[in-house]
Amino acid sequence: MSFFEQYAQIRKHTEQICLPLRTEDYVVQPIVDVSPPKWHLGHTTWFFETFLLLPFAEKYQVYNADYNYVFNSYYETIGNRVIRTDRGNLSRPDVNEIYQYRAYVDEAMLKLLQDPISSALQELLQIGFNHEQQHQELLLTDIKYILGHNPLFPVYHSAETKAKRETSNLREMISFTEGVYQIGHTGEGFCFDNELGRHKVYLQDFSISSELVSNGEYLQFMEEGGYGNFSHWHAEGWDWVKNNNITAPMYWHFIENSWYNYTLEGLKPVDPDEPVAHISYYEAYAYACWAGLRLPTEFEWEVAATKFNWGIRWEWTESAYLPYPGFNKAPGAIGEYNGKFMVNQKVLRGASVATPAGHSRITYRNFFHPYLRWQFTGIRLAK
Amino acid sequence: MSFFEQYAQIRKHTEQICLPLRTEDYVVQPIVDVSPPKWHLGHTTWFFETFLLLPFAEKYQVYNADYNYVFNSYYETIGNRVIRTDRGNLSRPDVNEIYQYRAYVDEAMLKLLQDPISSALQELLQIGFNHEQQHQELLLTDIKYILGHNPLFPVYHSAETKAKRETSNLREMISFTEGVYQIGHTGEGFCFDNELGRHKVYLQDFSISSELVSNGEYLQFMEEGGYGNFSHWHAEGWDWVKNNNITAPMYWHFIENSWYNYTLEGLKPVDPDEPVAHISYYEAYAYACWAGLRLPTEFEWEVAATKFNWGIRWEWTESAYLPYPGFNKAPGAIGEYNGKFMVNQKVLRGASVATPAGHSRITYRNFFHPYLRWQFTGIRLAK
Amino acid sequence: MSFFEQYAQIRKHTEQICLPLRTEDYVVQPIVDVSPPKWHLGHTTWFFETFLLLPFAEKYQVYNADYNYVFNSYYETIGNRVIRTDRGNLSRPDVNEIYQYRAYVDEAMLKLLQDPISSALQELLQIGFNHEQQHQELLLTDIKYILGHNPLFPVYHSAETKAKRETSNLREMISFTEGVYQIGHTGEGFCFDNELGRHKVYLQDFSISSELVSNGEYLQFMEEGGYGNFSHWHAEGWDWVKNNNITAPMYWHFIENSWYNYTLEGLKPVDPDEPVAHISYYEAYAYACWAGLRLPTEFEWEVAATKFNWGIRWEWTESAYLPYPGFNKAPGAIGEYNGKFMVNQKVLRGASVATPAGHSRITYRNFFHPYLRWQFTGIRLAK
Amino acid sequence: MSFFEQYAQIRKHTEQICLPLRTEDYVVQPIVDVSPPKWHLGHTTWFFETFLLLPFAEKYQVYNADYNYVFNSYYETIGNRVIRTDRGNLSRPDVNEIYQYRAYVDEAMLKLLQDPISSALQELLQIGFNHEQQHQELLLTDIKYILGHNPLFPVYHSAETKAKRETSNLREMISFTEGVYQIGHTGEGFCFDNELGRHKVYLQDFSISSELVSNGEYLQFMEEGGYGNFSHWHAEGWDWVKNNNITAPMYWHFIENSWYNYTLEGLKPVDPDEPVAHISYYEAYAYACWAGLRLPTEFEWEVAATKFNWGIRWEWTESAYLPYPGFNKAPGAIGEYNGKFMVNQKVLRGASVATPAGHSRITYRNFFHPYLRWQFTGIRLAK
Repeated sequence: MSFFEQYAQIRKHTEQICLPLRTEDYVVQPIVDVSPPKWHLGHTTWFFETFLLLPFAEKYQVYNADYNYVFNSYYETIGNRVIRTDRGNLSRPDVNEIYQYRAYVDEAMLKLLQDPISSALQELLQIGFNHEQQHQELLLTDIKYILGHNPLFPVYHSAETKAKRETSNLREMISFTEGVYQIGHTGEGFCFDNELGRHKVYLQDFSISSELVSNGEYLQFMEEGGYGNFSHWHAEGWDWVKNNNITAPMYWHFIENSWYNYTLEGLKPVDPDEPVAHISYYEAYAYACWAGLRLPTEFEWEVAATKFNWGIRWEWTESAYLPYPGFNKAPGAIGEYNGKFMVNQKVLRGASVATPAGHSRITYRNFFHPYLRWQFTGIRLAK
Repeated sequence: MSFFEQYAQIRKHTEQICLPLRTEDYVVQPIVDVSPPKWHLGHTTWFFETFLLLPFAEKYQVYNADYNYVFNSYYETIGNRVIRTDRGNLSRPDVNEIYQYRAYVDEAMLKLLQDPISSALQELLQIGFNHEQQHQELLLTDIKYILGHNPLFPVYHSAETKAKRETSNLREMISFTEGVYQIGHTGEGFCFDNELGRHKVYLQDFSISSELVSNGEYLQFMEEGGYGNFSHWHAEGWDWVKNNNITAPMYWHFIENSWYNYTLEGLKPVDPDEPVAHISYYEAYAYACWAGLRLPTEFEWEVAATKFNWGIRWEWTESAYLPYPGFNKAPGAIGEYNGKFMVNQKVLRGASVATPAGHSRITYRNFFHPYLRWQFTGIRLAK
Repeated sequence: MSFFEQYAQIRKHTEQICLPLRTEDYVVQPIVDVSPPKWHLGHTTWFFETFLLLPFAEKYQVYNADYNYVFNSYYETIGNRVIRTDRGNLSRPDVNEIYQYRAYVDEAMLKLLQDPISSALQELLQIGFNHEQQHQELLLTDIKYILGHNPLFPVYHSAETKAKRETSNLREMISFTEGVYQIGHTGEGFCFDNELGRHKVYLQDFSISSELVSNGEYLQFMEEGGYGNFSHWHAEGWDWVKNNNITAPMYWHFIENSWYNYTLEGLKPVDPDEPVAHISYYEAYAYACWAGLRLPTEFEWEVAATKFNWGIRWEWTESAYLPYPGFNKAPGAIGEYNGKFMVNQKVLRGASVATPAGHSRITYRNFFHPYLRWQFTGIRLAK
Repeated sequence: MSFFEQYAQIRKHTEQICLPLRTEDYVVQPIVDVSPPKWHLGHTTWFFETFLLLPFAEKYQVYNADYNYVFNSYYETIGNRVIRTDRGNLSRPDVNEIYQYRAYVDEAMLKLLQDPISSALQELLQIGFNHEQQHQELLLTDIKYILGHNPLFPVYHSAETKAKRETSNLREMISFTEGVYQIGHTGEGFCFDNELGRHKVYLQDFSISSELVSNGEYLQFMEEGGYGNFSHWHAEGWDWVKNNNITAPMYWHFIENSWYNYTLEGLKPVDPDEPVAHISYYEAYAYACWAGLRLPTEFEWEVAATKFNWGIRWEWTESAYLPYPGFNKAPGAIGEYNGKFMVNQKVLRGASVATPAGHSRITYRNFFHPYLRWQFTGIRLAK
């Protein structure tokens, strides 16, 4: 696929995710970690305008100089930005205006992509595509949060691809022997800077489950008092449970003696065979503790991932998000992409049902704060 | 005007206030004191449904049982309600759904009002009309807040009725002699329960200004360091100034060496002849202190108000919001209307440019916490 | 008594209140409203040094220039001060050093008082005496808080003068007829500036109880669900109850099926005949509401107080703390004494078991925020 | 040295650290991370009473059953505890009472240690000794905080052993070649459970500085705007700098154009040759970034530490605090010691001037949250 086609296809996919929305759904921001859908639409557009059109497209006219202030996310290099908690307070630019902004930038981009493409531009295009795909995933999880925390539980669409475990009767622990392994990205394709620096690590003997933990298994943890026994938890996980009265995964509701969870198809009975989702690292760790096992490290995961199916839940690892040996920040604003978040976060590996096709690979390193649950996060056990 | 006509006219006026809005403007809640316009539309409708249709309209079917949860404001008697800070997180019911809800309730109400109207119903109608009018005022001030705190400063309409002081060259202090005066509502028309209990008060000699304080006069206070001199301020007013970095009235911006303020017509140069607006009680008090005068009490204001023009700014008084002698809460939910707010608030008298026609009188008691500024509040001095 | 004798006696009384303390008890500050006893000792000394010795005592040498920073309470005119919440973080100056500071200042003061005393000095002496007496009351209530919130419930002394209601079988409502009454201080003796400006008020017919509400009566309110029924409460009182899980007066503990309260003699069974103490304005109001009565205004209280016994509980009134007609702040730091607190507080009348002899009168206006309970506050009903 | 002698010596050393204190200094808790010295004295005593005397000393009588509530730190297994922020609010038990408690427990312990000592007891003794030594270090750093945040800057002692860099003119980068290295404790001596599980790691080529970063070098970072340039910082480090107005290491004061820092000998000019101390991980990372280098991992540090001098600053590493392969929590309360803190903290290696003799080794893993600065923390660079 040419860059031109890729651009057109990726940008269109973002808008398709928004098709089931009503105008009002584009506007709200119920918690600080969720952004309004219209902000995602504008921000991904601003990214192409700022980092590709301005430096590369001759005589490009900025669409609206005020939009830099509204749609910058966290790039300190580029100037002031709307404080993150304020995104949901802005009714303007409105949804139509943002779609017009997209159309304007898309036209300029597609024009730019008709000409020969320098390698410097190619590199930024790759980042722009992957950036937009990351926001596609966030867009869907943010939409789920916005609809799933509305007391009317509106349906997003009526045909969510259900993430069934197909081989639950074939669960096994896959074993690996100790030794030196290679970690990190290699080869031709795109990767983020945090995957670079392929290097050796020494792993001890370990084994890892072929399957994710299911809702049914997690329910057993709940029923055996998992949320009430501090000995399974980190100290700050326990504080998090107590301060927020956590008693189940996000989106679960106990109604007339059975458990329901909000899905993109609406409120449904919890399916015991589906992999558990929307749990924090604290919960993943406590579950593993209760089960007498542990979470894998990100290195174990990367070594083992050719032996099991993955891709429907982001999988919490025991690893902290840290730079690989030789990691170097790129200069300028693009260099703010990853490095500055490398403290107090946990690595997740894999991908989820919300990840766009083509936006996952075995070396991909996702990362979140340990308390976050609004992503499709899950648990794979190791020992 | 018949009750039928009154109902139709008042309900229509609410919707007219919303005409210049875009869908997105109906949704957001930038601060806890502001409600989303769509919430005002739903809440006033819920009020008629709950307090008039349910008890009085035969076989009335509730439009949607979930709406009680969404649109109840603070009536503890009526059940759970959406926590106030959550109003801006709800994209559903959407704007169209709420207009349909209004239409449904309006049809039932107008049908009800074609029959003879009992005195019990008349009483609740009066409350419903006045309640809706109060929300009309809030609607406009909340819209101003939503648009005026957007970095794009969108225009609401292009013909705001400017509140000019006409007689600024005729400013005078009007004097009254000490003695016993009558305070509180009397006569036939509607009033709220907090105005009832006409009673005598003893006032000392006092005089009161014929004019409100102007922007130009307030600017002089600012230029002479009024915000930097603690001796003009209450202790908690001074804390408020320091903690919030207050240096000017709300909506004022200092741009390229002159003062602008956001108006419903957009960002405009501050007009020195216009009465100052959007100031807190703390600021009103500090200004009076700096001017060597004081704010009037609500009793002085009520006694004097036949002698001056009023109605474009809500005027802060020195009086705390307290019950009149003999005040009694009505039983049930309607009794939650006023009495339970009678602590830690200040009385404002008069009305503002945002007050609907017919919704003001000389005995009207408005009340706000001393730090609030989003209403069209102003200053009249006394000594 | 001469000024010399008065000074010596009042200053000695402060130290006598501290006699039962251990060194550690002088240091801590469990909540922001409580000050460490050693701070009270230093602050009252600093008051005499700053406002009397420095201007009036020839060649007076400041004891330690750093103490101004440590012992200033809230006088913005005099320079920086230790932020109130920090008082309990300061182990130095230590208790001995503060007693030495007291001795140094007392010596200089007593020397000054041997000479003829100008009327300007007399006025400041009166303020200094009354200021020290106010702190004697705070000292005792702060000590009660410090010891009463320690899990070991240490005894302060073993002979607390119990505040018994003597005439509980003679309870009656004393009636007054409507008309103009005189309010405010008159005559020769000392009063604070907030009592001045004797003026007329018009009161309606009212009656007021001869007795304070007892623990037994308050217990009935509790047992009938008073803390669980929002209809008795102000909206913000109800929030206060819910947010702080309030279910009883401060210092009450429910142990093995009966109620105990911490007293200066230690933990004791609640005495049903004693006047209830340590309740907030919110609770006083809710109790009155439940009882079908109301709290008196401060004017009613002042008019009626010659007809009943008072002086063992500070009595909450319905009145907000506001300036009397003609109130003027004194210039300079002394002027910061009262006026700047005249917003968002309630007036209390009377005196308490903690008030030093001679420091109460019928026109005295005490004031606290509505949520405060650490004083010996009580309830007298009116209608 | 026999267990008997070791016990006596270690317990005495704790009390010697407190010798320069006045009674008041034992009581206060200026921030949540600091504990009052009297609490350390009681808590270490409670540890021996609870984990050694109760299970091993026949007929041992608990000194005071209420002390478990007061002196438990965070052992959820053992029952309720005083909330950490409340420690500084407790004036009782007083200092004398706590010394009596120590004497009572010491007598019982020394009696117990005269008999033959089982291996189970030996193990707990080792933990108790090391626990007391950890608190000796905390005691000194907490005392420094208490005195150093008092506006009078009191001196702790007048002969602080100055931590001079002796070889500053011999600074070099020591190189190591890539390969498999052994990490973790081995051999006979005591270690904590978090050091166990000796295992192989693969390290890349690296070099590490023979010296700590000095005050003079850090000052250069400050003078070149290090605190004002976000590109050196983690995103949350930058927020920390902005929200707390951080412009220098803790205890530094800019007075009349030069830098002073509070030391245990009082306020002194900053010595440019001394290793910088009292900096957060965020600052250590930003400094390394500015210097074009990085912090070592804990594995690099452990491999290299035989080649340089260490022991005067706890040294921040880039490693997150995570379990070693095969880590297992001990059962019961002792198992709460380390494992439950293994999230969101950074590893520090080495020891500091506050570490008691004998309480350090090359495999020791200390850990703190990235923002903490009250320990004697420092910077060693790697690349």
